[in-house]
Amino acid sequence: MRMKDLVGGPMPIAKEIAEMIEKSSWIRKMFDEGAMMKARLGDEAVCDFTLGNPFQEPSHRVINRLRELVLDDASGTHKYMQNAGFPWVREKIAEHLRIETDQSFTPNHLIMTVGAGGGLNVILRAICDPDDDVIITAPYFAEYIFYTANHRARAIVVETDEHFQLIPEKIKEAIGPKTRAVLLNSPNNPSGAVYPEEALAQLGEILREKSSEHNRPIFLIMDEPYRKLLYDGVKVPWVFGYYDQSMVVTSHSKDLNLPGERIGYVAVNPKDQHAEALINAMVLTNRILGFVNAPALFQRLVAELQAEECDMSIYKKNRDILVNGLSDIGYNVISPKGGFYLFPKSPDSDDEKFTEALKEKNILVVPGKGFGRAGYFRVAFCLSTDVCERALLGFREVYKGCGISQKS
Amino acid sequence: MRMKDLVGGPMPIAKEIAEMIEKSSWIRKMFDEGAMMKARLGDEAVCDFTLGNPFQEPSHRVINRLRELVLDDASGTHKYMQNAGFPWVREKIAEHLRIETDQSFTPNHLIMTVGAGGGLNVILRAICDPDDDVIITAPYFAEYIFYTANHRARAIVVETDEHFQLIPEKIKEAIGPKTRAVLLNSPNNPSGAVYPEEALAQLGEILREKSSEHNRPIFLIMDEPYRKLLYDGVKVPWVFGYYDQSMVVTSHSKDLNLPGERIGYVAVNPKDQHAEALINAMVLTNRILGFVNAPALFQRLVAELQAEECDMSIYKKNRDILVNGLSDIGYNVISPKGGFYLFPKSPDSDDEKFTEALKEKNILVVPGKGFGRAGYFRVAFCLSTDVCERALLGFREVYKGCGISQKS
Repeated sequence: MRMKDLVGGPMPIAKEIAEMIEKSSWIRKMFDEGAMMKARLGDEAVCDFTLGNPFQEPSHRVINRLRELVLDDASGTHKYMQNAGFPWVREKIAEHLRIETDQSFTPNHLIMTVGAGGGLNVILRAICDPDDDVIITAPYFAEYIFYTANHRARAIVVETDEHFQLIPEKIKEAIGPKTRAVLLNSPNNPSGAVYPEEALAQLGEILREKSSEHNRPIFLIMDEPYRKLLYDGVKVPWVFGYYDQSMVVTSHSKDLNLPGERIGYVAVNPKDQHAEALINAMVLTNRILGFVNAPALFQRLVAELQAEECDMSIYKKNRDILVNGLSDIGYNVISPKGGFYLFPKSPDSDDEKFTEALKEKNILVVPGKGFGRAGYFRVAFCLSTDVCERALLGFREVYKGCGISQKS
Repeated sequence: MRMKDLVGGPMPIAKEIAEMIEKSSWIRKMFDEGAMMKARLGDEAVCDFTLGNPFQEPSHRVINRLRELVLDDASGTHKYMQNAGFPWVREKIAEHLRIETDQSFTPNHLIMTVGAGGGLNVILRAICDPDDDVIITAPYFAEYIFYTANHRARAIVVETDEHFQLIPEKIKEAIGPKTRAVLLNSPNNPSGAVYPEEALAQLGEILREKSSEHNRPIFLIMDEPYRKLLYDGVKVPWVFGYYDQSMVVTSHSKDLNLPGERIGYVAVNPKDQHAEALINAMVLTNRILGFVNAPALFQRLVAELQAEECDMSIYKKNRDILVNGLSDIGYNVISPKGGFYLFPKSPDSDDEKFTEALKEKNILVVPGKGFGRAGYFRVAFCLSTDVCERALLGFREVYKGCGISQKS
């Protein structure tokens, strides 16, 4: 892209946005090359593990409910409603959360949002003063960097351990007088880590101490769109019992396979003494950021589907094929406990170089540096099983080419 | 709202957001009182002219098309697509715009958005550096103040004339080295003014001159969700022929009666030399603001309905009853050429006091100060005709009470 225009004067794009485009141009280049590769060789010939776009369709129950809603001729269903969303939809979700969490949720603790991405922007706009700190953990979902920048906050990155688990002491050290929130993603994209109860309990203890020390509440924001995508009998603990100043943001992109429809919600801990003020602020920010309200039809759809379970059979199959296959080759890979991503160590310490080598074998993955942890790579396995099987040969050849001795 | 919490320390809401809530608390108070009034007296007893929520349902064509789409079992329809929206949907809209505007629109000049509110935030995030100026005209859609603040820009308010028409010289005077854009709303909310070709031509001339003088392009952003809601044979001219650095943002909230579903688009002038860079920036900002993409199903719905006409019969009836009725009483009211709002002069120079007096008669309107022009009030007439008829008696009584002699 030309950063100067032809007639003179700088480009009329905000500098910060132009820099973001510039910095992420390698991701764009990667996607463009992937698209060209598919155009040249055919979709079938390319193993594209780059996108977190679930390949599964919404279940019959979801589609049937959508049909019922659209065939039902009730008036007023496509109109504006309260910015927080339909009260009856929020009551349905509150009911679900009361059962799930044993906390006293009401519709007044909930705001329906344009997915979790919308929800996170609504939260950050509501709570962040300029130059406030938001602590995130690496590897992180790359969008967090942009979301905090949108609202003039600084993302403070704290490392996790070699199993991608929280190191509470490191988070404690990172907290200062400007810290407004800690933002965690569990199950984590890209690592698949799920944070257990003990970690949340420890973190709650630290945040209470630090909130008191700095005389300002520090929020714990849990981003949980993969909450129902779990393996090996693992459960994702709810944060509400461990820390009062907490919220959960989620979407139905992955658990109901509706990513394009943009529907999710934010749930504020009923025990948070600031709950009312927070929700009032988010009602305003949902409106003024231009979301106005979450799409009406999809609010109505998800209201009745809160208890819906995910079909994990294919994801589990894919995970096992890849984890076992890559481990056999010699890759250092931790089996994810949730979500549909692997985050193995790159056999070449230069993860971009490694990614380029994989591309030569028609395999597309994302370098770890895009998630704040260089030397790794992300494999999104929300695709058909034969792609996972087919890719193992290429993973083997590139591994060999990196000159590292194999396990077997 | 308590601005201090109980346990000590300030409220954990961003100061700017807390101030916005504080400042707009009178609007909230008004809505709350209106709701209480309806609860007490019944919906029927209250004439509520406060909300721009169209009471008409989507047409049978719209509903039938929605049913067709949902009954059709194509796979992949609820997934993520490009952040700009489905390419085929953008091609349908480009085709419509080619016919309408005679400009060479392609899908690459379009980005599907979460309504016009979403579109405006996507634009402003893409083009505004901190402290850039965005010129708006009063009376204005109140959200513009918030939208510019979201992205660290300053809204510079320029008055219109007594017919709510642009005063190009005033806009020219307001332009400085930090001016990034002029943002206009035609047909205008709240005044119903439509800006004619001559005004756009004059403004184009000024913006070319000033862009050159300050060596930076100044965008002309036309916000046109009411483009199809017109009276008296008036047409809304397209801006594209008058100024190259222009864009149109719109939604289908009002012309297809789908406000709750949040679907609209931004169209960048194909003649804008920066079009590609602008769209690239907006693809990023649509993503990072958390919209990600406009709701998939509603993109598909509106693709085929671009040429749909509005049924203006009830709005026209309402407009005529109110304009004639209020004029007969003595109100100074300009008949709107588009949209579904009246913006009469308040017979009491204190528009809030006048609004309070109307409330005593169970009539709810919004004081002009909410739109940057005190001494006026807004009447949203997107409701059933009998409410308009019923309200005239109250409007008459309050007018008399203001002690101004009547026309007749």
